[in-house]
Amino acid sequence: MENQKKPLILVSNDDGITSKGIAHLVKLMSQIGEVVVVAPNSPQSGMGHAITINEILRYYKSDIFGDIEAYECSGTPADCVKLAKNHLLEGRVPDLVVSGINHGSNTSVSVLYSGTMSAAIEASIEDLPAIGFSLCEYGMDADFSHTSDAILKIVKEVLQFGIPKGISLNVNFPKKSEEPLKGVKVCRQAKSKWQEEFDERVDPYGRKYLWLTGYFVNQDEGKDTDAWAIENNFVSVVPVAVDMTAHNALSYLNNELNIEE
Amino acid sequence: MENQKKPLILVSNDDGITSKGIAHLVKLMSQIGEVVVVAPNSPQSGMGHAITINEILRYYKSDIFGDIEAYECSGTPADCVKLAKNHLLEGRVPDLVVSGINHGSNTSVSVLYSGTMSAAIEASIEDLPAIGFSLCEYGMDADFSHTSDAILKIVKEVLQFGIPKGISLNVNFPKKSEEPLKGVKVCRQAKSKWQEEFDERVDPYGRKYLWLTGYFVNQDEGKDTDAWAIENNFVSVVPVAVDMTAHNALSYLNNELNIEE
Repeated sequence: MENQKKPLILVSNDDGITSKGIAHLVKLMSQIGEVVVVAPNSPQSGMGHAITINEILRYYKSDIFGDIEAYECSGTPADCVKLAKNHLLEGRVPDLVVSGINHGSNTSVSVLYSGTMSAAIEASIEDLPAIGFSLCEYGMDADFSHTSDAILKIVKEVLQFGIPKGISLNVNFPKKSEEPLKGVKVCRQAKSKWQEEFDERVDPYGRKYLWLTGYFVNQDEGKDTDAWAIENNFVSVVPVAVDMTAHNALSYLNNELNIEE
Repeated sequence: MENQKKPLILVSNDDGITSKGIAHLVKLMSQIGEVVVVAPNSPQSGMGHAITINEILRYYKSDIFGDIEAYECSGTPADCVKLAKNHLLEGRVPDLVVSGINHGSNTSVSVLYSGTMSAAIEASIEDLPAIGFSLCEYGMDADFSHTSDAILKIVKEVLQFGIPKGISLNVNFPKKSEEPLKGVKVCRQAKSKWQEEFDERVDPYGRKYLWLTGYFVNQDEGKDTDAWAIENNFVSVVPVAVDMTAHNALSYLNNELNIEE
């Protein structure tokens, strides 16, 4: 890479600009490229691919990462990528967009609810190479130290060889344990769901309210899934499509349902 | 259907329980089945597949639809479906979940940002048949009168024959015009994007803020897409998968990128 211009890497996340996970990712990315950070000013977990159209957006320059150009934004992760691309970067086009490292799992069906992945998916809509990184540990003080080598390797491969257009990568790391990581596996999204439970409480004024809680149910026995990889201490890498069409269901709709006219 | 129990139909939306679109859908569904409504108490457009995990949820019984069982909820469309299934329906399982009718298009890439479709997708995660209906007209006073026949036909077909598990239908109607609808087309999601523009303004206190605006760009020349169908005055029906894996990219990742260990 001597004499070459450093790649421009846009970093966002959904836990907010002050979280430990984005600090770890910014540090790694600054070893590889010129980094610009545009991240939410508050936690956005569970925001899915939300965008802000009923409210205004604000942003401020931040010196939280020292000399690295950084902005905090009042919006969602998808807003941050849109704001960067169309406003803050002033024509500079990122060579890569990375999001995370999320404090918590985004395997299997969680990709749909994931603010982390929404930043990556938003970038892939624009045909930019994009990767979301998540750690399967929810604590704000989670240990990210075992993620560095695989992140650097995956990012360098993607910068060199690219990803097919309209596709982003959903990378998940097992929680750090005494056993070292077994490796990296390319996977498909496991079929799974969250089994919700609503925790009903009473507020100090006598009114009922609910907390959404629940537990993860893996309904998929395949060994080629992200859920399997994480359970077995591998890093999982799932290619994620912007095209949500269930192509294998088109013939069913055409032949079994009498809805066309 | 004589002597048979009426199907249980859960109705939600993202424009909120007081919107004109959901009133039209509730009226149609009550011709076919026993209806329960669980819908947001405020507009949730652009919320994608957001769920409420950092805040509490509240719900209240509503008499907005007369004798029809209805609840308004402080959360997102996906929250509404979770709340219905795990709390309000008390073990009753819907035969169908419908969402909408949305005031505005959810064709092509908009499916990712769509609160309307997030309610349908949430149901399909639970293997419930689900359909999201949208009208390509944004006004709160939009005219839904031309949508009734096709909605009734599609709903009856789905109740009779089902949809493959893990798949929901994204149904979009053209804005009403003098020309009658040409028919219904099973389609794939068009490749497209929103070209954003940020409208920068100054608030009464001298601080800058932004509105996210933009216009839709169809990058897809196919005549088998939802964008083509709408432009040509057809109703579009796209099967939408919960599985976002880009299966056709797995071999690229396995063979072209050196990331597995």
